Amino acid sequence: MTKFDEATQAIRVDDQTYDVCLDPGYSIGGPLNGGYLMAVILRAVVDDSPFEHPVSTTSQFLKAPVAGEARVRVERLKVGRTAAFHRATLIQNGAPQIESLITTATLTGADPIYADKAPEIMPPVAQCIALPAPKPESGMTLNAQMEMRFDPPTIGWLSGAPSGRPESRAYFRMAEPQDPDPFVLALAVDALPPVVFSAGGRGWAPTVDLTWHLRALPAPGWLSLIGSGRLVADGWFDEEVEVWDSAGRLVAQSRQLARVGRG
Amino acid sequence: MTKFDEATQAIRVDDQTYDVCLDPGYSIGGPLNGGYLMAVILRAVVDDSPFEHPVSTTSQFLKAPVAGEARVRVERLKVGRTAAFHRATLIQNGAPQIESLITTATLTGADPIYADKAPEIMPPVAQCIALPAPKPESGMTLNAQMEMRFDPPTIGWLSGAPSGRPESRAYFRMAEPQDPDPFVLALAVDALPPVVFSAGGRGWAPTVDLTWHLRALPAPGWLSLIGSGRLVADGWFDEEVEVWDSAGRLVAQSRQLARVGRG
Repeated sequence: MTKFDEATQAIRVDDQTYDVCLDPGYSIGGPLNGGYLMAVILRAVVDDSPFEHPVSTTSQFLKAPVAGEARVRVERLKVGRTAAFHRATLIQNGAPQIESLITTATLTGADPIYADKAPEIMPPVAQCIALPAPKPESGMTLNAQMEMRFDPPTIGWLSGAPSGRPESRAYFRMAEPQDPDPFVLALAVDALPPVVFSAGGRGWAPTVDLTWHLRALPAPGWLSLIGSGRLVADGWFDEEVEVWDSAGRLVAQSRQLARVGRG
Repeated sequence: MTKFDEATQAIRVDDQTYDVCLDPGYSIGGPLNGGYLMAVILRAVVDDSPFEHPVSTTSQFLKAPVAGEARVRVERLKVGRTAAFHRATLIQNGAPQIESLITTATLTGADPIYADKAPEIMPPVAQCIALPAPKPESGMTLNAQMEMRFDPPTIGWLSGAPSGRPESRAYFRMAEPQDPDPFVLALAVDALPPVVFSAGGRGWAPTVDLTWHLRALPAPGWLSLIGSGRLVADGWFDEEVEVWDSAGRLVAQSRQLARVGRG
């Protein structure tokens, strides 16, 4: 069992309840990373489902849970022949923190009838950039769990040269050697710096709603995360992340609606 | 009150319950259109919210409700300073049909900080094509509620010449004169023929999960619906629809995960 598998463990208590222990190693300066929290929730739901894979997940982030004990309450809305529908609520100190709707099914890996090609936008890994470890006082413990190599223009904002458009791109893998799986993908779709930083935004950019679809089981190796946005307006922005695996297949698609930070 | 406003009316019964009457005029050959059903659900949620606009909606389609009486059960998950979170369930004959998570807020129409330009892919309205009314025996009553003008290559599949990629594009407005509003947009994001038809797919392509974001209040006039997909595999396909208004602004973004039909 890897550290990530352990950090996302969900222990069945009864028909509708799983105990979880939220790991302080996934903090983004206080709050825990939304992708990590989704992975925890999905552990419970997949355990409860007769199907193997979370093909669609929507999470509404009501509050920002902290490290420590929590529960996932799962409710089977419908179990069909080829897919199941669940509602899941992450609860801490008696208060709902994250509300999710999840569809599970079993992907077979059959050859696609139609597949877009991977965008030829990422330079090779060797030309992408690792960032220095954040200072301990930042509380950014998440970074230590993942290895990322950033497409240089998309981190220009770090040195005062934002690209001017909402975008964020990087290669991604777990720091502890682990082949990517659907739970790692839940982490991956929310692992990039907010795309709005490249458009000049700053500060805490809380996700309000994140929906992602698992499209195929990822091959071992680096994942490519391609993040973009279409509109920053009225205090809101969209962030869309496509995850492509090392075999050039689209394995996950996400879109989140988030708040522009005030910082 | 327009016919659409009337068909989507939700009458408050108590704190958590709205009575609705599902209109037979929104049938797609038996089942009712998912966008119409979302509009009905959103009427109830917006009525219950202190905020005016449904900025994020996710619906899981558990069953296919039929025309007639139904209820929307709403539950306030959190009411914050600038946004509220609701769960809403459409119930018919005592059985949950559609489960939704909705975020409401109030959009002000402030000038965007960043806005992508509308894709220059649609020919002018005059070069797009209206389709003949469906035969009464098809049960496709939805078409009579909307006017659509299709981008010709994307309906090539109708005459045996699919474009070979998942795509579907059209201009859209209500048949009865009505300026577009967020409820009309809920209808619009699910109004195109499934994008998979252009990739050679056929038959009933049921939506499993649809998430859409309201990004701005639409200007009067035609809406442009730009639909596409990335992957058709393992019996599933994604359909993404962008809705641009007559002023060239992105007003809605959706993505659905749906089943490839068998027929």
